[in-house]
Amino acid sequence: MHKLYHFPLSPFSRKVRLVLAEKKIEAELVEERYWEHRAQFLQLNPAGQVPVLRTGNITLPESNAIIEYLEETHPEPSLMPSRPEQRAEVRCLNGYFDDAFYRDVTLNLLGERVNKKIMSRGSPDPGNVRTGTRRIKYHLTRMEQLLERRRWLAGDRMTLADFAAAAQISCLDYISDVPWNQAESVKDWYAKIKSRPAFRGLLADQLPGFPPPPHYSNLDF
Amino acid sequence: MHKLYHFPLSPFSRKVRLVLAEKKIEAELVEERYWEHRAQFLQLNPAGQVPVLRTGNITLPESNAIIEYLEETHPEPSLMPSRPEQRAEVRCLNGYFDDAFYRDVTLNLLGERVNKKIMSRGSPDPGNVRTGTRRIKYHLTRMEQLLERRRWLAGDRMTLADFAAAAQISCLDYISDVPWNQAESVKDWYAKIKSRPAFRGLLADQLPGFPPPPHYSNLDF
Repeated sequence: MHKLYHFPLSPFSRKVRLVLAEKKIEAELVEERYWEHRAQFLQLNPAGQVPVLRTGNITLPESNAIIEYLEETHPEPSLMPSRPEQRAEVRCLNGYFDDAFYRDVTLNLLGERVNKKIMSRGSPDPGNVRTGTRRIKYHLTRMEQLLERRRWLAGDRMTLADFAAAAQISCLDYISDVPWNQAESVKDWYAKIKSRPAFRGLLADQLPGFPPPPHYSNLDF
Repeated sequence: MHKLYHFPLSPFSRKVRLVLAEKKIEAELVEERYWEHRAQFLQLNPAGQVPVLRTGNITLPESNAIIEYLEETHPEPSLMPSRPEQRAEVRCLNGYFDDAFYRDVTLNLLGERVNKKIMSRGSPDPGNVRTGTRRIKYHLTRMEQLLERRRWLAGDRMTLADFAAAAQISCLDYISDVPWNQAESVKDWYAKIKSRPAFRGLLADQLPGFPPPPHYSNLDF
C-alpha cells in the first residue's frame, strides 16, 4: 500500500495524485501542513516539502522521481512514449512546468494569495502578483503554440507532461487566476483532462477559507 | 553529432558534460553567455538557460531530460541501476542536488561571488554568502551520512546522482568554497570522481578574472 504525504494546493502533490489516479493505484492520502515542520515528517524528508511517497520501506521525496517510479512499476496505462526523443520531450516539458512556469506564475499568484496567508507569512506582495498575472499570459501563449498542432502537450497521446501542466493550472484555476478567454486551445485541452476520472479527487478539494469558484469543478466550465 | 550549449561554471551544464564524457559521446561544446539573451539562443530555448543539447533536429533544454536521454540512447557504461526503487533513489538525489543544494548553497556562493560579477548585477550580498557558507555544512553532513555506508551516493555503483552532486561541488571548489576538512568521506568520494577521465574537461576550465585555486585541478588535492 502506498501512502502519499501531500497538500491539496501543492501543484507537485497534484501531479503525483493525478498519476496515481490515472493508473488506478490505491494510495492513502495524508494531508501534511509541511510548513509546520512536524518532526516525524522531517524524518521522512529533511527538506520538509511535499509530496513524499512511502511504499514499503521506500521513501521518495521528489515528485519527478515518484512519477517515473510509478510509470516503471505500473506501466499501464502508459504515460510515457516509447521513443527516447519523445520521452525526452515529455521530460523537458515536465521540467518547464515544474521550474519556469511554477517560478514565474504559480509562486507569484498561489504563493502570494494563498500560501502566505495559510502559512502566516504576511500579505500578498502586489508587485509579485502583477508579475504572475503578466507572466501567465506569456506561458499560456507558449502552451497555445504547442496545442494548436497537437492533441496533447507532448504529442497525440496524453503523457506525464499533461499532468505536470494540469497540476499547475488547476491550482491557479482554484483561485480564478487563469484568463481562460485568452487561451482557447488551452481551455479545450484543460476541459479534456479535467473530465477524466483521475481528476475527480482534485476537483473535490476544499481549502478552508478559500472556497473555489463554481466553474472550478464544472466539467463544461 | 551532438552540440551542447553550456557555460563553464553552470553546474547543470557540468552535469551533462560529465555524462557525455563518461559515456564517451562526442559533442561540440558551445560556450553560451546565456544572460546576454542572444536572439539565436532564445530561439532554441525561450527560457534562456543552459544547458541545451542539440542533436539532429531535436533540441533538449533541460539537464535531467538530457541525461536521461543520453542514458537511454547510450546505455553503456550504465549510470542508472536497473531496479525501479534504486532508479527512483538516483532521481531523488538528482532532484535534491539540482533543487535544494543548488538553491541553498550554489546560488548563494557561486551566484553571489561569480555570476553577479560576470553578469554585471552588482556586488555580492554578504547575507546570502553567509547563508551559503552555513548551509553547505548542513548539506555536506547529509552527504557524509550517505557516504559512510556506501561507496557512491546512491549505492555501490557510480550513477547519475554522483555526477549531479559533483557538478555542484566542482563549481564551489573552483571558488574555494568547500570546507574539505569538515567532510572526510565527501572528500574521498570527490577525489575518486574527480580523477576519472570524464572530469578532465571540467578541471581545465578557466573563467577569465576568476583563476581557480591550485588544488582545484590537483587529483590528490
